[in-house]
Amino acid sequence: MPEFLKLTPVPQALQTLLTHVEANINPECIRTLDALGRVTAGSVCSPISMPPFPRSTVDGYAVRAADTFGASESLPAYLKVVGEVLMGGEPGFDIKQGEAGLIHTGGMLPISCDAVVMVELTQTVGTDIVEILRAVAVGENTIKEGEDVLAGEEVIQPGSRIRPQEIGGLAALGILELDVARKPIVGIISTGDEVVSAEHELRPGQVRDINTHTLSALIERTGGSTRAYGIFPDDYDQLAYISAQALAECDVLLITAGSSASARDLTSRVINSLGSPGVLVHGVNIRPGKPTILAVCDHKVVIGLPGNPVSAFVIAGFYVVPVIEKLLGIREPGVRFRLQARLTTNLPSLAGREDWVAGCLQGNPPEYMVAPIFSKSNLIFSLVRANCLIRVPPDATGLAEGEMVEVLLLS
Amino acid sequence: MPEFLKLTPVPQALQTLLTHVEANINPECIRTLDALGRVTAGSVCSPISMPPFPRSTVDGYAVRAADTFGASESLPAYLKVVGEVLMGGEPGFDIKQGEAGLIHTGGMLPISCDAVVMVELTQTVGTDIVEILRAVAVGENTIKEGEDVLAGEEVIQPGSRIRPQEIGGLAALGILELDVARKPIVGIISTGDEVVSAEHELRPGQVRDINTHTLSALIERTGGSTRAYGIFPDDYDQLAYISAQALAECDVLLITAGSSASARDLTSRVINSLGSPGVLVHGVNIRPGKPTILAVCDHKVVIGLPGNPVSAFVIAGFYVVPVIEKLLGIREPGVRFRLQARLTTNLPSLAGREDWVAGCLQGNPPEYMVAPIFSKSNLIFSLVRANCLIRVPPDATGLAEGEMVEVLLLS
Repeated sequence: MPEFLKLTPVPQALQTLLTHVEANINPECIRTLDALGRVTAGSVCSPISMPPFPRSTVDGYAVRAADTFGASESLPAYLKVVGEVLMGGEPGFDIKQGEAGLIHTGGMLPISCDAVVMVELTQTVGTDIVEILRAVAVGENTIKEGEDVLAGEEVIQPGSRIRPQEIGGLAALGILELDVARKPIVGIISTGDEVVSAEHELRPGQVRDINTHTLSALIERTGGSTRAYGIFPDDYDQLAYISAQALAECDVLLITAGSSASARDLTSRVINSLGSPGVLVHGVNIRPGKPTILAVCDHKVVIGLPGNPVSAFVIAGFYVVPVIEKLLGIREPGVRFRLQARLTTNLPSLAGREDWVAGCLQGNPPEYMVAPIFSKSNLIFSLVRANCLIRVPPDATGLAEGEMVEVLLLS
Repeated sequence: MPEFLKLTPVPQALQTLLTHVEANINPECIRTLDALGRVTAGSVCSPISMPPFPRSTVDGYAVRAADTFGASESLPAYLKVVGEVLMGGEPGFDIKQGEAGLIHTGGMLPISCDAVVMVELTQTVGTDIVEILRAVAVGENTIKEGEDVLAGEEVIQPGSRIRPQEIGGLAALGILELDVARKPIVGIISTGDEVVSAEHELRPGQVRDINTHTLSALIERTGGSTRAYGIFPDDYDQLAYISAQALAECDVLLITAGSSASARDLTSRVINSLGSPGVLVHGVNIRPGKPTILAVCDHKVVIGLPGNPVSAFVIAGFYVVPVIEKLLGIREPGVRFRLQARLTTNLPSLAGREDWVAGCLQGNPPEYMVAPIFSKSNLIFSLVRANCLIRVPPDATGLAEGEMVEVLLLS
């Protein structure tokens, strides 16, 4: 049986994992100005109507529409100008039949007027008469109180990521604080007899830990908080002990395996010791990242990541990020839009496996070019040189120069 | 003459502005772990070779390739197993003719071996003999010291945004601190007699300041730092005074105009008072955002943003973000990749103007659907509901349902 038939396809593996994850929101109240990147813990409803008063959408004259009926350049309507609406205040006058009031964009409409004529379609005559050169319909160039948002209306859904526009919208409504989901705590355990910390001087045969740092930054950016437990040797007892402690303290646990096959087997045995149901998926039909382990132990997600830094990074994007998103209450976890680009060179691949290859996307819209970055050992620097990952679908035996391919931006 | 002939097209306006902007890097040294989102102030060169020692890329047996020539399943080569390379240390033995050493992925190659045979292509015989079932070439399944990165080689270019993979790569090299560009200070002045702060209770005719908050979050996310000067009435003297002070204290100055035409004229007069060359572009051929003012005063960028919050947000994405990026030293400021999606409904537009309409992108790759969000008054909540902006090219008189369109993600 070809190996890929035993491996779980990429999307099914995610579905299997997410089935076991429930949002765990645990709201905390923070200042709106500090909320960039956080996720709303509930509905945000508007305390006021927007706009809070009827407004003009143009510079011009507030009128009664009926007074302009039939008006044209050759036969204008003449209206008496009874005042000017100053910005930021009430008009202080109302519009009776035959009258008009000068008004600016965003100005509050006087009572009894029902339309605004754009200034370009008027002409002043003397000091207090305006010629109206075209008729306006009732409501034209105005916006009613609450036409955009009614008091009490939901303006931000639960599970929404706060972006600059949400911060502005909340400011508009005078909402200075809001409830956001607490950041899930993601524990990271690095393993490998050959792995030492970044501060360590290297002895022959040793390499520095990359994954803790890459994963921490990715977790932080997704809205989680990282607890790094350090680097442990490939020893069952030590690893099982620290993993159980970490799982008790965290919402999600990541274990990055050493690079050898025996180290990977160790990770899977340790994970199965942590609680049921244990390992759900062992091996995903993807390169890089095939030896991935997806597990749930006592209602908490545990992911065994490959030790290779490129594999760990790619897999974290596909599985760790959606888990954090789901815990935060994000409505559609794991959505990452892909671009289309034309491949600059042939890209070999094995059929039956989904490949993601580091690439360099460039060019001008609507057509982009993407060049694969070939790297013998899948070092982290192939991802440093890349701005995207190129997808080679499972059924392709490589892609040809000039073909359109899907790419995921690495921003 | 149609109005759009007097307006500057969107890309030319950016080019005109950026011509006057020089990178202003002013390096500061920070911890690598705090560098996510910052921009490298110079080249980062590797202090070591990567890998730092010759390694195996598979689990298997380190051999001399010549000893395997002609080996096959029917006629295996027999080699004497002289040791096992433990992870994280030196091998402690070398490989002589007729010998092999057990080695794991990432293990350090013993001296005198020049290839590794995958364990799947071997079979052990007794305790210290291994059958080699296929020949390997010199160098096969190995990676040389420095094959990925040589000591002294540039691994991160100047002007690179630090992402999770850069943090991991720097950790791998033992680089615990690095020089990044200082955050440019962007001053924001809000104007408008009708505008009050978010903390303010609204009186009739007043609206709360949205732009300061939206822009601050956008600036922060781009890598700038915001200094908000508050809200000022539409008064030339006050505005000229505070603008001159702000320009002296900041690297970039944003003035968001009141919504009326006279308030917009005021902004342009104030900007021209701040230094030469003054206003470079007054009016961009875009909706929303037509009344944008792009200026350079005494070598600093000053941008007059429309008062409408959607306009201000869209224009900030097109002009403020690239200016901050260029000041930070980013090599290609203003690059934003666009996706292709199929329009779910007709979208009317005026020919001769580039429109950007809030939209909701959904669906599964490779084909996405995008639905425009229609909003009468361009309130900020149309952007809150949106996850993208849809481009209507200048030469289109609207787009038809089912057409492929370009969209910019609003993440």
